[in-house]
Amino acid sequence: MAQPVGKAERIVVALGGNALGDTPEELAGRIAETTPSLCRLIAMGNEVIITHGNGPQVGWMQKAFAYAHMTDPFIPDLTFPDCGAVTQGYIGYHLQQGMVNEIARQGRDWHVATVITQIVVDPDDPSFKNPVKPVGEFYTKDQADMAMRIDPSLIFMEDSGRGYRRAVASPMPLSIVETPSILNLLDNGYIVIACGGGGIPVVKNADGTYHGVEAVLDKDLGGEILAEECDADVLFLLTQVNHVSINFGKPDQIDLSDLPVAKAKEYLAQGQFGKGSMEPKVEAAVRFAESKPGRVAIIGALENAPLIMKGESGTHIHL
Amino acid sequence: MAQPVGKAERIVVALGGNALGDTPEELAGRIAETTPSLCRLIAMGNEVIITHGNGPQVGWMQKAFAYAHMTDPFIPDLTFPDCGAVTQGYIGYHLQQGMVNEIARQGRDWHVATVITQIVVDPDDPSFKNPVKPVGEFYTKDQADMAMRIDPSLIFMEDSGRGYRRAVASPMPLSIVETPSILNLLDNGYIVIACGGGGIPVVKNADGTYHGVEAVLDKDLGGEILAEECDADVLFLLTQVNHVSINFGKPDQIDLSDLPVAKAKEYLAQGQFGKGSMEPKVEAAVRFAESKPGRVAIIGALENAPLIMKGESGTHIHL
Repeated sequence: MAQPVGKAERIVVALGGNALGDTPEELAGRIAETTPSLCRLIAMGNEVIITHGNGPQVGWMQKAFAYAHMTDPFIPDLTFPDCGAVTQGYIGYHLQQGMVNEIARQGRDWHVATVITQIVVDPDDPSFKNPVKPVGEFYTKDQADMAMRIDPSLIFMEDSGRGYRRAVASPMPLSIVETPSILNLLDNGYIVIACGGGGIPVVKNADGTYHGVEAVLDKDLGGEILAEECDADVLFLLTQVNHVSINFGKPDQIDLSDLPVAKAKEYLAQGQFGKGSMEPKVEAAVRFAESKPGRVAIIGALENAPLIMKGESGTHIHL
Repeated sequence: MAQPVGKAERIVVALGGNALGDTPEELAGRIAETTPSLCRLIAMGNEVIITHGNGPQVGWMQKAFAYAHMTDPFIPDLTFPDCGAVTQGYIGYHLQQGMVNEIARQGRDWHVATVITQIVVDPDDPSFKNPVKPVGEFYTKDQADMAMRIDPSLIFMEDSGRGYRRAVASPMPLSIVETPSILNLLDNGYIVIACGGGGIPVVKNADGTYHGVEAVLDKDLGGEILAEECDADVLFLLTQVNHVSINFGKPDQIDLSDLPVAKAKEYLAQGQFGKGSMEPKVEAAVRFAESKPGRVAIIGALENAPLIMKGESGTHIHL
């Protein structure tokens, strides 16, 4: 069994697609289910920073603007950084209102703030030369070829036999522009929602200014940077399952409760974890656990948060 | 001539449509023009809170989602509170990046935070029974009648001979949910962007929880509440003109530099100011000047900010 996490920790909680759903109705429902567990973590004495994914929301934002732009050219097409900003506002508002409402129901005197967050990436990140993250609508090969002829900067890729989708760079997040604001709120007892969708991807120019770049970020890796920059004790990566498993779905599946970094790297090298699902979570967990002695990353299910903090559920990744 | 404003004031600056433009290109251009003046205000020793309108952006968000929802019913239609949240993210990101970039160019050590802001309105506000704010697309009478038959909660109104538009409630903003977060940042020296588009309209339920309501808020009245709750000294309402004028556009036009509240109320009663343009600004200014002795509201042009602070430009409204 894993070690219990000490009381009064600073915890970054990364909410995935499962915690937010695909549609506005699902978002509302999942937030109502999620906020009591988050409040329980805080009631246990912990400081909580919430971050979240934005995949489905960016999907329908992009689709909506693509349709609308075809119908009415005066409606602008949204860039990926714009989609990030828009979904940070949208999901942030709902998550914040959900937290405020749960806090009111519990009669607590806690405050919540959503901070719009930019995250810096390297313009020379290899993913810009070889974008592999499929995003948005499916097209036929002919449609994809035509789109690439019209705008040669676009790249399309075949996605799992279901058609062609735009391939976008997913560079490694490096640092957060708004860390001082986030820390200021956190240090004064505020519950902070930040770095939604992994952060708005920006590049730092030679003169110290920033500009947005066409990229999508991984929310777990973004949450990992957030956790490092806030000097968090725990990075809590939420998913549908209670544990990370090896030999997943096979007769000899083993659910892991305690996972030292060295072992995690071994399993990563073996390709034990699902690409685009468990693998990036384990990678983010390893990065966090390695970043400073004593830091623990936990992959588990939010509804088991109290058990997880006692070391009785979830996979605890540590040095 | 108006009295100069003392140094080291707390100032809420409300940026209007003119300061933000209609399209993404205009937004970028206007922000680049606006941020040096905002930084000048801060360099003079003032604490600055920035708020902004969102009219054009809500216009094209609504339109985009209406088109997209017709094409693909799986794309959700956005509610007005959602549009508020989305544009707070979108404009907040660009404004914040613009400020951060201007700060970098000036070599200052200032930080900027955009806070997603909900503003409370009264569910019994008379405007919910009689919505008069025209929003979004123009329709024919037949289209409007059909839409109202399909969804009887919708109200359409004839707008200046140009066709029918949806009429939405524009209730009086009463208080801000996130004031503690905004104050915490402000008191620690952060430049705060808040209450965009007048705030996301919400109603407070009997149990202390909140829910979003279909309404659009006036950014100047929202900025006024923000200024009151932050105990600001100055509310700076920006517009294209240097002064508030009476007999506007007539041979006997008089530009006002000093305007006591009593006189402003007289002019408001005479209908001296343009509905939906200068009138709500003067109303917001009067509310702020009346809210506490010593508070001053200024209506003027941002590029004249240094002159305005010296009392040499703009219309200064005071008790």
